[in-house]
Amino acid sequence: MTRPPQNVIAAAQNASLRLADRHTPLVMNEWYVAAFGAEIQRELLARTLLGKRLVFFRTTDHRVVALEDRCPHRSMPLSAGTLQEDTVVCGYHGFRFNSEGDCIEVPSQSSCPKNVGVKTYRTLERGPVVWIWMGEADQADVSKLPPQDWMEDDKWERSQGYLALQASYVRLHENLLDLTHLSFLHAKSFGTPDYAKAAFESEIGEGQFALVRQVVPTTLPPVWAIPTGLTGPGQAARMVRSEFRSLGLHEVSVTFYDCHLPEKDRPEFRIRTAHMPTPESATRTHYFIVHGRDFVQDDPATTRFMHDQLFVAFQEDVDGLALQEQALAATPPEELYEFSVSADAPAVAMRRYVLSRQQKEAQD
Amino acid sequence: MTRPPQNVIAAAQNASLRLADRHTPLVMNEWYVAAFGAEIQRELLARTLLGKRLVFFRTTDHRVVALEDRCPHRSMPLSAGTLQEDTVVCGYHGFRFNSEGDCIEVPSQSSCPKNVGVKTYRTLERGPVVWIWMGEADQADVSKLPPQDWMEDDKWERSQGYLALQASYVRLHENLLDLTHLSFLHAKSFGTPDYAKAAFESEIGEGQFALVRQVVPTTLPPVWAIPTGLTGPGQAARMVRSEFRSLGLHEVSVTFYDCHLPEKDRPEFRIRTAHMPTPESATRTHYFIVHGRDFVQDDPATTRFMHDQLFVAFQEDVDGLALQEQALAATPPEELYEFSVSADAPAVAMRRYVLSRQQKEAQD
Amino acid sequence: MTRPPQNVIAAAQNASLRLADRHTPLVMNEWYVAAFGAEIQRELLARTLLGKRLVFFRTTDHRVVALEDRCPHRSMPLSAGTLQEDTVVCGYHGFRFNSEGDCIEVPSQSSCPKNVGVKTYRTLERGPVVWIWMGEADQADVSKLPPQDWMEDDKWERSQGYLALQASYVRLHENLLDLTHLSFLHAKSFGTPDYAKAAFESEIGEGQFALVRQVVPTTLPPVWAIPTGLTGPGQAARMVRSEFRSLGLHEVSVTFYDCHLPEKDRPEFRIRTAHMPTPESATRTHYFIVHGRDFVQDDPATTRFMHDQLFVAFQEDVDGLALQEQALAATPPEELYEFSVSADAPAVAMRRYVLSRQQKEAQD
Repeated sequence: MTRPPQNVIAAAQNASLRLADRHTPLVMNEWYVAAFGAEIQRELLARTLLGKRLVFFRTTDHRVVALEDRCPHRSMPLSAGTLQEDTVVCGYHGFRFNSEGDCIEVPSQSSCPKNVGVKTYRTLERGPVVWIWMGEADQADVSKLPPQDWMEDDKWERSQGYLALQASYVRLHENLLDLTHLSFLHAKSFGTPDYAKAAFESEIGEGQFALVRQVVPTTLPPVWAIPTGLTGPGQAARMVRSEFRSLGLHEVSVTFYDCHLPEKDRPEFRIRTAHMPTPESATRTHYFIVHGRDFVQDDPATTRFMHDQLFVAFQEDVDGLALQEQALAATPPEELYEFSVSADAPAVAMRRYVLSRQQKEAQD
Repeated sequence: MTRPPQNVIAAAQNASLRLADRHTPLVMNEWYVAAFGAEIQRELLARTLLGKRLVFFRTTDHRVVALEDRCPHRSMPLSAGTLQEDTVVCGYHGFRFNSEGDCIEVPSQSSCPKNVGVKTYRTLERGPVVWIWMGEADQADVSKLPPQDWMEDDKWERSQGYLALQASYVRLHENLLDLTHLSFLHAKSFGTPDYAKAAFESEIGEGQFALVRQVVPTTLPPVWAIPTGLTGPGQAARMVRSEFRSLGLHEVSVTFYDCHLPEKDRPEFRIRTAHMPTPESATRTHYFIVHGRDFVQDDPATTRFMHDQLFVAFQEDVDGLALQEQALAATPPEELYEFSVSADAPAVAMRRYVLSRQQKEAQD
Repeated sequence: MTRPPQNVIAAAQNASLRLADRHTPLVMNEWYVAAFGAEIQRELLARTLLGKRLVFFRTTDHRVVALEDRCPHRSMPLSAGTLQEDTVVCGYHGFRFNSEGDCIEVPSQSSCPKNVGVKTYRTLERGPVVWIWMGEADQADVSKLPPQDWMEDDKWERSQGYLALQASYVRLHENLLDLTHLSFLHAKSFGTPDYAKAAFESEIGEGQFALVRQVVPTTLPPVWAIPTGLTGPGQAARMVRSEFRSLGLHEVSVTFYDCHLPEKDRPEFRIRTAHMPTPESATRTHYFIVHGRDFVQDDPATTRFMHDQLFVAFQEDVDGLALQEQALAATPPEELYEFSVSADAPAVAMRRYVLSRQQKEAQD
């Protein structure tokens, strides 16, 4: 072969038209992570989310405030101003805004004009993260935030980190719903050769997509083998559930145990990872990650070891997806096509769902 | 409030349509500063003004020459060539141009084709600066250059400087016609808290816009207090006139005196600052500044002290305007709006005038 | 003069419409140099040629393979994967491709889908360089590659080098077909003042363009004087033939001899330079150079001396053409015009031919 026949390419291109990609407008009506709570303190924090420039701060009573980061007088970023009590003072002409976004002082005159203010955004602080709703305010339903109780439960030892991804959040979700790449992209970190070939089941529902994979027996990579003690060759079971829970959250749950011990006697070791991508733009993504385990409690050295090992792997994703994005950007539309295989079914369904969400939003 | 009601935003957007901004084409028929005279010597100097690439040099009899910086043979920048007597020799094939822009030699042949040359621009050297006219040559009237006699008068001790502004010259003029920002943007340099709240008068004429502000009594910031000796709290009067004199020149005149002395006995201290913005492009500006004082003559240390203090403040403008420009560029047009307040009246009138100048030029 | 009259400019602009320039689409049906053979080893090499991203490797039996550098599964660059024997394994999901571009393994499933593969490109290794054909495969005729036997002949001592040119390959060909610039652009390297004024003959044929110039007597610059021993003032003849042989190859042949010796007694010294530009894009060019001489054999010090001296001069071209390209990019189309003189005749004919090649290709 050189290039596939044109009719085969045309069919592949046609199938891709039903999938969200880097050209799909962002879906606004969703809870996305804005920041780790620890990032938002008594200083102004500027961050661009879903193409909009925002400024964050924490009030004197510890609430998180998210405002449009542009003074409506002369467009100075409010984040270049100062935080005074629970108000933001613009650094250019001193217009003052309260935490509801209302302009409450114009220094050059005795009264403040009516109807001047900046947009505010609803936030929810849950465990270590701050979620934000940037879509229609009347749709900002807390029930749309997938519960992540373990992130607020002290039984789970946690660590967290942030990666700046130079790629579309759609492709990150695709990556997370496809675990056959572990054996290749992560060959030097937490992938093992048997992973790509292990049997898996897909769960494809309405807006819920999951991969379930049981690699038994297997040899664990150091990141899991050392903390669990399951260091022997072929000693471990690795039971993985990887689930798209919303556009802003993908959760990976893994249970490890010694597959040579009888079920009733064996301890189980559980880890969870919340992957929380928030689009900065169509092709740049804030990638927030919280990782937890329910074993080896109160051991900072183990936490550090696992965190460092994991972030080597997540950086491989970030580097790989950036290369993929570059190739996508460099390929003329008429020459671009992608083929899918069986293992892509959950990711393909997810991308179809993301596109339908955007199309529905555009109609409303 | 979150965001102002849509009808309020629409009204603000509608009002802005009458004001020059970053999208307004540049006004060509005006005298702008091309360079400080000291920059133009017996070397080729390349500079882009009003979107056009120019090359400058000084002739053997000290005249300033401004030529189009592109050889009409094969588009090499002439500034990459050499200056030989009063001619420029292109560095690629050696085509030679005289100071009138005529091609007078083609080395590969014995005669030079007719009608080959580059555009020349009229310049006027006045005191420390070189003005240039880049519009219609037949409109290059010297009387259109606002007189700045003090810049050529030895009674005034002067210093000068250049800042590269990553913003529209319109916004710099707006900044200069609005002094309420001194208390905020310049809180750490020459602004004082009473400045924003001081009463002011506006003068709004045809193409002439001024702010007059008398801050009496006031406490001077060090840049003025130390050279004048008016260091006491509430000791000084600060009488400011800030005037848009052309698209290429804004002049600030300030008189200081001891407000506790009777009028007939008190010495007056005067400073002048010529702010001379020249668009490089719609959103980049060459910012030339000349500052003068009529007191403490022949004292380089005082000159240096005042210059350094002032340029800290002017750099605050440049930094702030760049942030403003970034916010303007990042805001989708349909989401952009700005409200004005009373103190903005002179700047708003000026921006309306700039737009009318551009519209008139487009019609001619 | 200031600017030439508008009718003169319009005539110049009109004449330029018939010449290839930075806006002319690239000509695909041609042999271009892809790489020096020494660059392609048992590692994956990524390179963009004619706007297309390719990956190169050498098989276990030393053949050069050129593949499209994008996995058709999920667009990862194959160059980020691994070379295993004569196959490339994608670094994302492990899809494996053979040297014909066929996908032969998908790790997540037992069989490989049909009709999945990447485009391959035909290459020809000749002496130190690898040529590639990126146009229509059925037109990839070896006879279209201009013979360069000297590049494979041990009688010629050779050196080679690569320069990254930030300009159109059309302007590099123009530069190579115009030697009047030697006296100016190369005034400090191998140009001499008499060069621009020396008589020359042009040969303008169908797709073959040459300049023949005999500079007799002349004083050689050090790069030629030292190796030939023709160091005396006015001692040398410098007989130059500079020929466009294809869009991918320009050859310069020079013969030197002592012009004071009778013809039958004098030794002749010959050098050849193959200038091989390959467009990376419309305004970036891979510039491959091979230089050879038929005298002072087996003397690495002389090879090094000549190579270093020559590459100083070629870098002058690269620097000058980048400045020219910047000026072309910065000039609005309606203000751009270029005049040609007699010495430009071969280059103008060549640019007309390049445009006709592109137009013909667009019709086919």
